[in-house]
Amino acid sequence: MATYKIVFVRHGESVWNKENRFTGWYDADLAETGVAEAKLAATFLKEKGFTHFDVAFTSVLKRAIKTLFHIQEGLDLHWIPVQRSWRLNERMYGALQGLNKSETAAKHGEKQVQIWRRSYDTPPPPMDKSDERWPGRDPRYSHIDKNLLPLSECLKDTVDRVLPFWHDSIVPQILAGKSIIIAAHGNSLRALVKYLDNMSDADIMGLNIPTGIPLVYELDADLKPIKHYYLATSEQIEAAINKVKSQGKAN
Amino acid sequence: MATYKIVFVRHGESVWNKENRFTGWYDADLAETGVAEAKLAATFLKEKGFTHFDVAFTSVLKRAIKTLFHIQEGLDLHWIPVQRSWRLNERMYGALQGLNKSETAAKHGEKQVQIWRRSYDTPPPPMDKSDERWPGRDPRYSHIDKNLLPLSECLKDTVDRVLPFWHDSIVPQILAGKSIIIAAHGNSLRALVKYLDNMSDADIMGLNIPTGIPLVYELDADLKPIKHYYLATSEQIEAAINKVKSQGKAN
Repeated sequence: MATYKIVFVRHGESVWNKENRFTGWYDADLAETGVAEAKLAATFLKEKGFTHFDVAFTSVLKRAIKTLFHIQEGLDLHWIPVQRSWRLNERMYGALQGLNKSETAAKHGEKQVQIWRRSYDTPPPPMDKSDERWPGRDPRYSHIDKNLLPLSECLKDTVDRVLPFWHDSIVPQILAGKSIIIAAHGNSLRALVKYLDNMSDADIMGLNIPTGIPLVYELDADLKPIKHYYLATSEQIEAAINKVKSQGKAN
Repeated sequence: MATYKIVFVRHGESVWNKENRFTGWYDADLAETGVAEAKLAATFLKEKGFTHFDVAFTSVLKRAIKTLFHIQEGLDLHWIPVQRSWRLNERMYGALQGLNKSETAAKHGEKQVQIWRRSYDTPPPPMDKSDERWPGRDPRYSHIDKNLLPLSECLKDTVDRVLPFWHDSIVPQILAGKSIIIAAHGNSLRALVKYLDNMSDADIMGLNIPTGIPLVYELDADLKPIKHYYLATSEQIEAAINKVKSQGKAN
């Protein structure tokens, strides 16, 4: 029997998803479709009886924060504490950040782009610290040791960056009996799912978490997953997954 | 010379302000006009160079939280930490909560209503714990000793409730050099202003803080106010104050 239930939500479509660009740590806003996805996520939660959370976690990127805010609005939970952390950010895409995925595929080859996107341990080319996009220039990261700020991340790097936050900030709340919702990004959520389900490096690369569809993990007393499920119909999930998969193909 | 600057913002018009009801701890949403006021507050801040805050504080009531969120949106500061506390809530209006101000004035007399609204130390009639509006039934207050939850508050009670949060949660951040914004309510802000300016009980009752107009307090190294000012023109402020004053008169 499940002792704990936690809910993950991947943010809805951003303006850069729409433009098919590598977003990473760029603070792209939600597209209107993304706002609609977030509102729909609240509806899915309500319909399935997930009407209360004690604590919410999100990244320091507005597409996740606003997804969470629309869910809070839908559930009338503005008042719950929200903890933002850079450790829940999307994978940092290095020098590719901001580039159009199709153009990058046309230039470097779709195969290379697929490696950068889908290899577990091959990071994209690093961003230079002199680059104006370097997170070390951004006040939201000013409290962080600059040596800790990634210049590029493969998913393995993202896992290593996300897990300390899971262990130090999220797990204590779960063990204290708090009901938890985490609004984050495709790859920070993959990092958590890989850890929880003890998935192989290969298997996690094949997992596409759809946007805007709440994903419930039921955990036992040792925080081992008993089962997980999406709060939506299989048609809704399939449509969302296909949209994610189609990104990154040269068109 | 000012060592610290802090910014207060009173939330914009709520749907219950519009209906001229005693709102107190009822979680009324912002009216559309209130959303517009919040967005305008962000514009005032930007125009006067207040483009960054390190930490934000607000109540557990959505009209303040959403006012803050619209300001964060306007300043592109979704990512800053936001601390919500019941101690920044509006004055708890006891048995009057939810009643129409004009009807209450017609029934009890405008003079009695003015006493309840404007006396420093005469609380309105208390709410009964069997009342469905009693905060002890609301999950947002479930972590608080029920003996601490007010059944009614005069401004003196609100001051006593607000100040521990000022001293324990806000001041340490100010002294750590963080720039602070506080989005709260007419009476919780009065409580802070009374304390900071060491105002008499009579003087604070005459102070009407306008909604949606950022109020800057400059403090010296001992946290004593050097000066304070609104980030708007005198016409904008006068119009806002007149709106506040006109509430509570039987019409």
